[in-house]
Amino acid sequence: MNSPVEKLALVRSALHQKSIDICIIPSSDPHLGEYIPEHWQIIRWLTGFTGSAATVVITNSFAGLWTDSRYFLQAEKQLSGSGFEFVKPGAFHRNDYMDFICENSGPGNKIGIDGRIFSIAQLRKLEKRLENKEVSIDTGCDIIDTLWTDSPELPFSRAFDHPVEFSGKARSVKISEVRKQMVSENADFHLLTSVDDIMWLLNIRGSDLKYSPLILSYALIGKEQILLFIDEAKIPLKLASEFDTLGITLLPYEEINEVIPAVTEGSSVLINPATTSVSLYNSISSKSKIIEMISIPTRLKAIKNKTEIENICNVMIKDGVALTKFFCWFDFNSGKLPMTEKSLSEKVLEFRSQQKDFLGPSFATIAAFNENSALPHYTTETGTGAEIGERGLLLVDSGGQYMGGTTDITRAIPVGIPSVQHKKDFTLVLKGHINLAMAKFPNGTRGYQLDFVARRAMWGSGINYAHGTGHGVGYCLNVHEGPQSISPADNKTVIEAGMLTSNEPAIYRDGEYGIRIENLILCYEDEETEFGQFLKFDTVSLCYIEKSLIDKSLLDQKETDWLNSYHSDVFDKLSPYLTLEEKNWLREKTDPL
Amino acid sequence: MNSPVEKLALVRSALHQKSIDICIIPSSDPHLGEYIPEHWQIIRWLTGFTGSAATVVITNSFAGLWTDSRYFLQAEKQLSGSGFEFVKPGAFHRNDYMDFICENSGPGNKIGIDGRIFSIAQLRKLEKRLENKEVSIDTGCDIIDTLWTDSPELPFSRAFDHPVEFSGKARSVKISEVRKQMVSENADFHLLTSVDDIMWLLNIRGSDLKYSPLILSYALIGKEQILLFIDEAKIPLKLASEFDTLGITLLPYEEINEVIPAVTEGSSVLINPATTSVSLYNSISSKSKIIEMISIPTRLKAIKNKTEIENICNVMIKDGVALTKFFCWFDFNSGKLPMTEKSLSEKVLEFRSQQKDFLGPSFATIAAFNENSALPHYTTETGTGAEIGERGLLLVDSGGQYMGGTTDITRAIPVGIPSVQHKKDFTLVLKGHINLAMAKFPNGTRGYQLDFVARRAMWGSGINYAHGTGHGVGYCLNVHEGPQSISPADNKTVIEAGMLTSNEPAIYRDGEYGIRIENLILCYEDEETEFGQFLKFDTVSLCYIEKSLIDKSLLDQKETDWLNSYHSDVFDKLSPYLTLEEKNWLREKTDPL
Repeated sequence: MNSPVEKLALVRSALHQKSIDICIIPSSDPHLGEYIPEHWQIIRWLTGFTGSAATVVITNSFAGLWTDSRYFLQAEKQLSGSGFEFVKPGAFHRNDYMDFICENSGPGNKIGIDGRIFSIAQLRKLEKRLENKEVSIDTGCDIIDTLWTDSPELPFSRAFDHPVEFSGKARSVKISEVRKQMVSENADFHLLTSVDDIMWLLNIRGSDLKYSPLILSYALIGKEQILLFIDEAKIPLKLASEFDTLGITLLPYEEINEVIPAVTEGSSVLINPATTSVSLYNSISSKSKIIEMISIPTRLKAIKNKTEIENICNVMIKDGVALTKFFCWFDFNSGKLPMTEKSLSEKVLEFRSQQKDFLGPSFATIAAFNENSALPHYTTETGTGAEIGERGLLLVDSGGQYMGGTTDITRAIPVGIPSVQHKKDFTLVLKGHINLAMAKFPNGTRGYQLDFVARRAMWGSGINYAHGTGHGVGYCLNVHEGPQSISPADNKTVIEAGMLTSNEPAIYRDGEYGIRIENLILCYEDEETEFGQFLKFDTVSLCYIEKSLIDKSLLDQKETDWLNSYHSDVFDKLSPYLTLEEKNWLREKTDPL
Repeated sequence: MNSPVEKLALVRSALHQKSIDICIIPSSDPHLGEYIPEHWQIIRWLTGFTGSAATVVITNSFAGLWTDSRYFLQAEKQLSGSGFEFVKPGAFHRNDYMDFICENSGPGNKIGIDGRIFSIAQLRKLEKRLENKEVSIDTGCDIIDTLWTDSPELPFSRAFDHPVEFSGKARSVKISEVRKQMVSENADFHLLTSVDDIMWLLNIRGSDLKYSPLILSYALIGKEQILLFIDEAKIPLKLASEFDTLGITLLPYEEINEVIPAVTEGSSVLINPATTSVSLYNSISSKSKIIEMISIPTRLKAIKNKTEIENICNVMIKDGVALTKFFCWFDFNSGKLPMTEKSLSEKVLEFRSQQKDFLGPSFATIAAFNENSALPHYTTETGTGAEIGERGLLLVDSGGQYMGGTTDITRAIPVGIPSVQHKKDFTLVLKGHINLAMAKFPNGTRGYQLDFVARRAMWGSGINYAHGTGHGVGYCLNVHEGPQSISPADNKTVIEAGMLTSNEPAIYRDGEYGIRIENLILCYEDEETEFGQFLKFDTVSLCYIEKSLIDKSLLDQKETDWLNSYHSDVFDKLSPYLTLEEKNWLREKTDPL
């Protein structure tokens, strides 16, 4: 195939034919979620950049790529010589590709986007920014289709049941709950475009995507019926007949754009503008009354039910056992066996695969040594897979999909003797981690209010990290899931009891190393006082935190107490599943500080 | 005059005649700011409620008042027997009067508002909430005019110059700066409806309002000319002729609604939708292109210039001397002289009045004893002015307008021996106060990210306060001024060097007492590291913090160090202006903990 430089020339010529002055290509597919099949990985094909989130803008004289801070260093490396410039934006909440378009467009310009993979919310944002620019927007700019002739097929996998012992709630009950909320929102129909919403609602899973147990689909929930747009061959007969009794009708995946406008004509349709494509939105909105909000399943599934919580706690033991075995193995073999980032990633997967009900990794494992660990989302798939050297820091960020939950955990460990700076940075990250883990806060608190506590210690030393502190985590679903987050961004979602969120402060020193300590924290109800109901977090991930990287003088008594109590919990819960050798090793790793 | 019950009957009959089903009355005037002249204090006249912020909703069968948490207890007291129900909403960010309207309106209903005192932003919010309700909104509901026949005249005061030694920047320079930003926003005109914006821009002050040195006015900034809508008699000749040389034309205050649409026809006009009334907006928007954002002076004046900062520091000494003399006087005379909350308020004013360039109080002084101090905005004007008893807590929240700045400071002191709970609560508030004062954070941080640090200690004990932690403070202008705040609300404004903000965590125990510790903090640039520019706060208010209320065991070393260093600063800066007796008293009050 052609090089990025050659592809860019082809794109420019296609744009010229369509009289498009500025073309925007987002890293998205028609479901507008985070995880997209190869079929839609246009930016990867076009530019060579492999990060999961980016936007490309192409004009006659400019071609550039914007991405978030996770991928800054990676983008710089991968775009070198591609003809695409990496545009490094400022810190949080500022300078995006829209700034560029605002500054570089004028009266009469035509801006092209592909309305199939651009959300209506994004389009509105763009329109608002360009309000006074007298430009036009062509939403039918699907030029890549004709250029990328050998794009991979859409994936095929078979759906399987996610039974009540794992889901905690029958699909019929979930459907009733959603319909009840539809009534209070005055919605005749509810369109689901996010695949994980559909999996949750119907208690099914599959493996269409690499790291999320999903089957590509759309659903339209009506008052009595549900239309499920999915490749029929993906649904086993038994499931299909169960669906039938619940009024769930299967329709071809591709027919969504024709069927939905016809079915919903004259009715009210609840959609999430952030995950509904421009073309789908336009086809519905001309015939129906649109109600816009975050989807009902997204809100409901964020609050884990009792069965789910029990399963999560069991899964955390399995996951912790796998990781403990991995780190113990590493400790015993480091310096003896040849090891690379790639071989370590495989080793982590090997240990997880030994656990019951393990479905696969929940994202591409990050095993990164020294300077590679300074790239927050470096993976061995996209990175060099470098050898592990004699001295430095190894960061391992990995997770698993289990029938009973999704995990995501990061640890950094020393190779050889850690330096003073290693220890100082590690301890600052740990302080942030512990203080968020210990936070107590009233009902009604939003994630952005809690973010500071994880940064406070490092900010005091003039250090920061350019990503959020915590993301919501799915349940045998996407490892990143909304609606809540703990981050500086103005996410208005309130943190509620039952929400599962990551806690992952970090420090990255370009060209040297990165440190991140990540556990999942489950919110629960603490005391109720005259000032209201208070909430706390329970740290559910179970894996020791490396004590040799801690500068004890920087921890206060409460922080030390938290660590000792966490370590005692880790040992008690994991040791029954370890060999004697591993158990002795873990006892030392979890001894009081 | 009639009672609230009788007035309510008159309003209902007027609404009936206009076929209005639901009438909304906000506590605002055509400038849509916080401080409104008596002429527009409709809610006070109608209901007897004297709080500064409220919304009244009247239907045929219901009449209710919503206000914020500052006024909950006050509203409950004052509305008793008025025919108006106090509707206590939930915690932050939820349940407002719009919820009520949504739930209690249906197809065909007509909702009435007075478009002169309702902002276009509020109207849009209301319209959005009522989107699917098939109701209509009548924006010409000015029924109060005919009912409140003896409403006070608009105020009259003479403007005076605010010279460059205080303002730090000539009006011609400020005008150029604003025009420069208008160019980059593509605005031909900029409409200023916030009176403090106009005072800042033109370097003038007056005394139309009780606590803010303002003259009621509007301004329209064009490329060469400025139209100033103001009672001409308020402008002294010398100022008028200076204005003339700068292209500032005086026009009658009342003519704004006719002149502006005519002048701006066919041009682009920058307005702030939050402070532009529905009627003004509608008259402009039909003839001009509207650009909406926060006003340019609001953004510029939030960053205090070097001269202003120098003056603020001087003013803080004057203000601190006045307060120190007051508290010393109180200490020497408590239990000897009869004292009431009212007499103490007058005494505070007396000491401030002795200071040079003092213009008046910046808000109604709160001197509140025991249970009265549990009302966050209790004032002796609206409260009982109770006698100071033998034992308990006295809270004094007061501030001054000086030519060189605006102050706002709160202290709580014990009367008699404080209880263990007094001390615990005071120390938790103090911990919050100190930790915000010590915060260090990177460029780009928003106020909502910092709010937690002031609440963390008390949240840990299941305690909270239902107001923000900090508001912006004007410079010889409104004591509450935007755009920044430090609060749980999602204010996207970034805290920048030069911003002056209050730091006022608190604990209120209904029926017992309230504690609030408030200083003003000035943001400045601290170190720049590889992670970017970091910022810190300088606490500029100067007054001792009562040590006998501190439970030292609850403070950590850094907190104790901060307090001792602050106290040493307070003594050094204030003692030169005190009598020997006062100086000795202050030395003891500021001795290291």
